[in-house]
Amino acid sequence: MSRLTLALDVMGGDIGPRITIPASIKALEQDPMLSLLLFGDSQQILPLLENTPQSIQNRIKLCHCSKVIDNHQDFTYALRNSKGSSMRLAIEAVQKGEAQACVSAGNTAVLMGLAKILLQPLKGIARPALISVIPTINGDRSVMLDLGANIECSAENLYQFALMGAIFAENCLGLVFPRIALLNIGIEEVKGYKSIRDAAEMLKQNPTLNYIGFIEGDLLLNGKADVIVNDGFVGNVALKTLEGAAKNVIALFKGNATLNKTNPILKPIFRWFLRTFLLKGSYQRLKQINPDQYNGASLIGLTSVVVKSHGSANIDGFAYAIADAAQQARQKIPEKILAGLQKY
Amino acid sequence: MSRLTLALDVMGGDIGPRITIPASIKALEQDPMLSLLLFGDSQQILPLLENTPQSIQNRIKLCHCSKVIDNHQDFTYALRNSKGSSMRLAIEAVQKGEAQACVSAGNTAVLMGLAKILLQPLKGIARPALISVIPTINGDRSVMLDLGANIECSAENLYQFALMGAIFAENCLGLVFPRIALLNIGIEEVKGYKSIRDAAEMLKQNPTLNYIGFIEGDLLLNGKADVIVNDGFVGNVALKTLEGAAKNVIALFKGNATLNKTNPILKPIFRWFLRTFLLKGSYQRLKQINPDQYNGASLIGLTSVVVKSHGSANIDGFAYAIADAAQQARQKIPEKILAGLQKY
Repeated sequence: MSRLTLALDVMGGDIGPRITIPASIKALEQDPMLSLLLFGDSQQILPLLENTPQSIQNRIKLCHCSKVIDNHQDFTYALRNSKGSSMRLAIEAVQKGEAQACVSAGNTAVLMGLAKILLQPLKGIARPALISVIPTINGDRSVMLDLGANIECSAENLYQFALMGAIFAENCLGLVFPRIALLNIGIEEVKGYKSIRDAAEMLKQNPTLNYIGFIEGDLLLNGKADVIVNDGFVGNVALKTLEGAAKNVIALFKGNATLNKTNPILKPIFRWFLRTFLLKGSYQRLKQINPDQYNGASLIGLTSVVVKSHGSANIDGFAYAIADAAQQARQKIPEKILAGLQKY
Repeated sequence: MSRLTLALDVMGGDIGPRITIPASIKALEQDPMLSLLLFGDSQQILPLLENTPQSIQNRIKLCHCSKVIDNHQDFTYALRNSKGSSMRLAIEAVQKGEAQACVSAGNTAVLMGLAKILLQPLKGIARPALISVIPTINGDRSVMLDLGANIECSAENLYQFALMGAIFAENCLGLVFPRIALLNIGIEEVKGYKSIRDAAEMLKQNPTLNYIGFIEGDLLLNGKADVIVNDGFVGNVALKTLEGAAKNVIALFKGNATLNKTNPILKPIFRWFLRTFLLKGSYQRLKQINPDQYNGASLIGLTSVVVKSHGSANIDGFAYAIADAAQQARQKIPEKILAGLQKY
């Protein structure tokens, strides 16, 4: 593993430093070749770093700034007034070459806007997109894009998303000739928006891409496709719906299990039973599809790696997003997308 | 309960009569005041009715037709060539007053198209919509619309959906002043399509409606809103995603449970344990959110009740759709929507 420096906007997200700082420490513990530039309010950050071992602190550079981009701000206003904010400074660190990638849990639209202005889209890419890895019930992984960066998309945009998604899946998931599908409201050719139907025609005509047709929402977790392509509005709704449904059903089981576990007489019997029969397989498989394990979407189509964490990510989730950014930067995903664009 | 006759298109759906006929018999057994007109191919239907008791057969009228609207047909072609098809004949039976409501598992777009032409939208309704009841993890129920009848919608369309949804929730779910939310990619006012933001403004200005703001995909099952409003494309994707995720997670548990149940020594222990501790609460609650219990979406905004069953519905699911149509017809939902439209 090579030495790497990431720039983090530690003020973004619903909770801010109380999540992002412990997550940063965790990521540094897990990756001894990693260094971090932390952009945020030192008054909030310093107390959280107090008991950190010196060996970890040596790989942290705290860059104070008090300005934060509010999640509720209007996009245009936020963009215009972004100077000196933790998010913008983190992206600028990548722009200046001080860091190789950037992570933020802040406002997605502003992150995309700033990244497009400061880091620039790759040559030939009309619209960078937000991509995420999603689990399948078979233990495999798919990717899905766009997840909210572009709420209205043309056929050409969807076609480029498919192309970028395929390159991402090849390089990040190690898939060969990944199967591409367009998310639609039916599998018949006549279904859906014109932009989707036109994108299907464009994909069919490129024999170097493995386009397999339309996919419906109920099969997103079933591993029928490796690359699922949609506009950012539909993708965002579908991904959140997926996460919400999975979390709720898991919580139904867990909630009841906790109830039974509290009885001191039943507790050992309960534990034995869970270990022996029921949860051995199921729980492992459920963990695979637990959204906490899959935090972090990436803005792809830019000249550098930018990872967007969920605003509501917990410590493990934000640490996962940092590790994800590090992996993509080491694998040089933007360079591979650029090379892939020329190949197709 | 009053006497009622429903018209069924028994040829629609992925499997056709082998699902719809046993489901019809089941619905008749459960509802002694119900009669059915079955539209479809008598060669396929008659063998399936052979062992049905006379008392049930007396309430069935088989109306033979060999023509079926294919799910893969282009909308315009299917509409033009619909004459004499099981779907069209079933709707025409309602138009002529021979039946009070209609059920089909066929092509949604064609069903909506024919219903609009033959049964007409209610006065003042620009676009009828597809609505469905969805379960919540608390054991309550919400409604969601549109689910695929209108893939692109204006702010006015969304506003009317909200209004119809509220009236439906009041009358079918017995809710008082139901909470209305617009499905969006964030809860901030600046998020999403202009049509959604404009619909939000219209809803805010009507004090007789209980508009509570935007809702994201991850909270669809949490009972935060009673009426969830969206365009048909997003609604269709979200509902299918919800169903797919719930079914997959439930299957992960069930799959493992079945595995353990096959061992003859462990089976009684396993059963005792399940009954005593684990599944008592969880399984009941999981059943609540099992999509099979919620088959059947309704086209609302028309002068008569039309229920669209899932194409992949099983016997229980299609029987549920028939019972749903019967209940709506008895409750005179179209008349109540019309009255409600004038009130708001």
